Amino acid sequence: MALPQALENYRKQYRKIKLFQDVASVLHWDSEVMMPEEGREYRSAQIAAVAELTHVWMTDKSFLNQIQSAKKTIGELPESARSVWTRELEVLMEEKEKADKLPSEFVSEFAKVTNLAHAEWATAKKDKNFQSFANRLEELVQLSKKQADYFGYVTEPYDALLDSYEKGAKANQIQILFSDLKESLVPIVATAPKFRNPFPGLISIDKQTKFCNRLPSLLGLTTKESRLDTSNHPFSTSLGKGDKRITTRYSEQDPLSSIFGVLHETGHSLYESGLSAMPDWPTPLTEFLSLGIHESQSRLWENQVGRSLPFWEFVYPILLSDFGLTDKELPFKDLYQYINSTEKTKVRVEADQVTYNLHIILRFEIERDLINGKIQVKDLPEIWNSKMKESFGLTIENDAEGVLQDIHWSMGAFGYFPTYTLGNIFSSQFFKKFTEEFPDSHNKFSTKGDFSDLLTWLRKNIHSKGKIFDVDTLMKQTTGESANSKYLISYLNGKIKEVTK
Amino acid sequence: MALPQALENYRKQYRKIKLFQDVASVLHWDSEVMMPEEGREYRSAQIAAVAELTHVWMTDKSFLNQIQSAKKTIGELPESARSVWTRELEVLMEEKEKADKLPSEFVSEFAKVTNLAHAEWATAKKDKNFQSFANRLEELVQLSKKQADYFGYVTEPYDALLDSYEKGAKANQIQILFSDLKESLVPIVATAPKFRNPFPGLISIDKQTKFCNRLPSLLGLTTKESRLDTSNHPFSTSLGKGDKRITTRYSEQDPLSSIFGVLHETGHSLYESGLSAMPDWPTPLTEFLSLGIHESQSRLWENQVGRSLPFWEFVYPILLSDFGLTDKELPFKDLYQYINSTEKTKVRVEADQVTYNLHIILRFEIERDLINGKIQVKDLPEIWNSKMKESFGLTIENDAEGVLQDIHWSMGAFGYFPTYTLGNIFSSQFFKKFTEEFPDSHNKFSTKGDFSDLLTWLRKNIHSKGKIFDVDTLMKQTTGESANSKYLISYLNGKIKEVTK
Repeated sequence: MALPQALENYRKQYRKIKLFQDVASVLHWDSEVMMPEEGREYRSAQIAAVAELTHVWMTDKSFLNQIQSAKKTIGELPESARSVWTRELEVLMEEKEKADKLPSEFVSEFAKVTNLAHAEWATAKKDKNFQSFANRLEELVQLSKKQADYFGYVTEPYDALLDSYEKGAKANQIQILFSDLKESLVPIVATAPKFRNPFPGLISIDKQTKFCNRLPSLLGLTTKESRLDTSNHPFSTSLGKGDKRITTRYSEQDPLSSIFGVLHETGHSLYESGLSAMPDWPTPLTEFLSLGIHESQSRLWENQVGRSLPFWEFVYPILLSDFGLTDKELPFKDLYQYINSTEKTKVRVEADQVTYNLHIILRFEIERDLINGKIQVKDLPEIWNSKMKESFGLTIENDAEGVLQDIHWSMGAFGYFPTYTLGNIFSSQFFKKFTEEFPDSHNKFSTKGDFSDLLTWLRKNIHSKGKIFDVDTLMKQTTGESANSKYLISYLNGKIKEVTK
Repeated sequence: MALPQALENYRKQYRKIKLFQDVASVLHWDSEVMMPEEGREYRSAQIAAVAELTHVWMTDKSFLNQIQSAKKTIGELPESARSVWTRELEVLMEEKEKADKLPSEFVSEFAKVTNLAHAEWATAKKDKNFQSFANRLEELVQLSKKQADYFGYVTEPYDALLDSYEKGAKANQIQILFSDLKESLVPIVATAPKFRNPFPGLISIDKQTKFCNRLPSLLGLTTKESRLDTSNHPFSTSLGKGDKRITTRYSEQDPLSSIFGVLHETGHSLYESGLSAMPDWPTPLTEFLSLGIHESQSRLWENQVGRSLPFWEFVYPILLSDFGLTDKELPFKDLYQYINSTEKTKVRVEADQVTYNLHIILRFEIERDLINGKIQVKDLPEIWNSKMKESFGLTIENDAEGVLQDIHWSMGAFGYFPTYTLGNIFSSQFFKKFTEEFPDSHNKFSTKGDFSDLLTWLRKNIHSKGKIFDVDTLMKQTTGESANSKYLISYLNGKIKEVTK
């Protein structure tokens, strides 16, 4: 059936905007992965110009008119189609209205300050000197509070910021989720063992690359629709239908870091690939649902699958062959234990799957208090260090390994951190449910390296749903429950038991 | 001194258009070099959308107004600045007026037909069947004649098309240049020897890559502003200031093909790099002057330098080391002779530096007659084959190795071919002049691998001139003479003598 003209018109404009947003993604991917260094200045101007263009189109009065005309014709559609169309326009309008709440002078001011802050944070981190960054961070906190005021909130300013990353999430609910989790993590961390690196020496980047190149296809992301490259910081990005890019980084000392980078980013790209496969792609409903859900997909493949016995039973002989090692040189048990080793460390990005969540909870508590005005920027190092002592029993020697370690706050991204642990929580719920429905899947993983049941399940229950439902509805539909940390805790408990027996 | 506002305004808009044209170049480079295959459809839509946008901006009435306002303020400038500004706006207006001559329906029709023709040409070539492509080619010829009528011409329709690739060139003059050249080439080809491939076996792509990666930097194109990759068809492109990309392709059987690909494309990129270094970049005067001049830069480094004794004296030991060969396994004399071997072959892209020009002259004669209505599309294979017999003494067995071998006509690019040989002609004139001014340069090439005198000379005399002067003026300023084939002929004669002694 042909759509009413007004719906066609609005979608045509939406898709034009999306097409150019994806152009910006190509420019960005290239700048991170391929571009020679002297191209940076001109490329930044290109990215800014494309971003300005799409922003102008998105906030243009004529686009608003198109959306409103579209809305009026929904009644002409068959009843079965109306609710999805209503949701599509609602989701878009929410996003537009949120953007419209920020005066354009505020947007440029915020961009200017974060731009300065990023460079100053890098210097302060290099110099291990928080105080040289404190004034700028204070400025960012004030701007972020102002942003929260522009957005509006019911309970606390932090909620307004959190909402930008995890639509509909509230700090109070996250607090409850995280308290449960923290309480259970403490005894797990206390008993979880650390295992030694079992690799008999350095593993060349060529050997690691050979193995890593197999992984995306193994999980279901083909080379026809994706490529794997190297960058300073692993990331994944969708450049459009049929074009997902992932990166990792290689360390000869620690070959697991590249492998888990690839598994993680492949998870993100499989989600994006599933979104692109939605029948009407691209529409506002074929976008990712939330950062927490996005992260659940990466964490699921990285941890639930990638640190599992069946997965390693299948890939172990391939790894030995690619790395040129024998099972004497790299015994399976040693490798598998190392993959699931737990250790209290100071730096989030080096953390294991157990302690990682404690790092996030610490950041959530601090940034929430900061935005809600309960603590001051100048006191951050002291607060950080005492929390690290309390949660990890570790003494922070300097700000670079403490409060300055992460880039997020220097980008004004307050409210981002909790989505990492939400991802872990969601992924455990999803994987638990999948395993119940496909009890034989582990056998297929280990004997055939066949992960298609899982991918099909994720496609059906999560990827193909896009933004049609909100997070809570999706969780209930898919797992029968709202978000809760029960399954993450039982997964981690089970894992520790498994590797210590 | 601050520029009058009208000049600033016009340049701001010009630079915005240029910025987005370069965005299209990034999208295109990525699609040829990096993109997974399933990204093609979406990427084509992106490239088309960016092209449409820049076309709209370029032909917009408001941009015309800006240019006209700018023109009126030139009188306010100091007298010394006026002529360059006048030229800048003239060059731009010529381009705009040319574009304006084509009705937009004609432009879409032309794009549609070339799009179809490209696929049909590929099939016809695969099937070695010209007649299956004849009707479409006839359509393209008719459209190209129509295009010539829109552009207008004084002497013959072909001139109007030629002008798009080589501004100001006339078929009559090229005819004279090429007749001289052809006459001299016949005896050269008759005596020029063919030498056998001296490589003792296959050379792995890794080894070739190692050597090829050295070449751009050696000639003066650093990795800070460029990168070298692999693609099906070697090409070079400028993605903006500080970002030049070149590609080559590797054959284990013929390691010279990748090397000369890199030298050729490096020549193009050095020109683009020099243009980007012009003080006001980007303006209409910092664009390349003509395809012939662009090609002169690639041919100069590929042939005049890249097939010279001094160059190989310097790189030979490096090549031996990278390829893991001894001078017994690959004797210098055998290698150098092979590099300058001459052989009558059927396919242009495999031709040596001597016979290459005969391939071009043949195409020029045919396409000129075709556009001027002196011959018919249906007779092309017969005409092609008889000319190949006459010029090369070769019998064409099928259309794939004959009239269907090149992509150009399927793109509607009539008038492009002569620029290749113009490039050879110009490059010989430039190199001759340079050698007169820097008689010691060959010594620096061979003993130190120092090509900086040459690059500096090209920067000063050609690159930094951009489009400030027309081709004939540039040739006279730089070499004291208009274009003529004397130096190409004496270069080729000298080369044959050198390798046969």
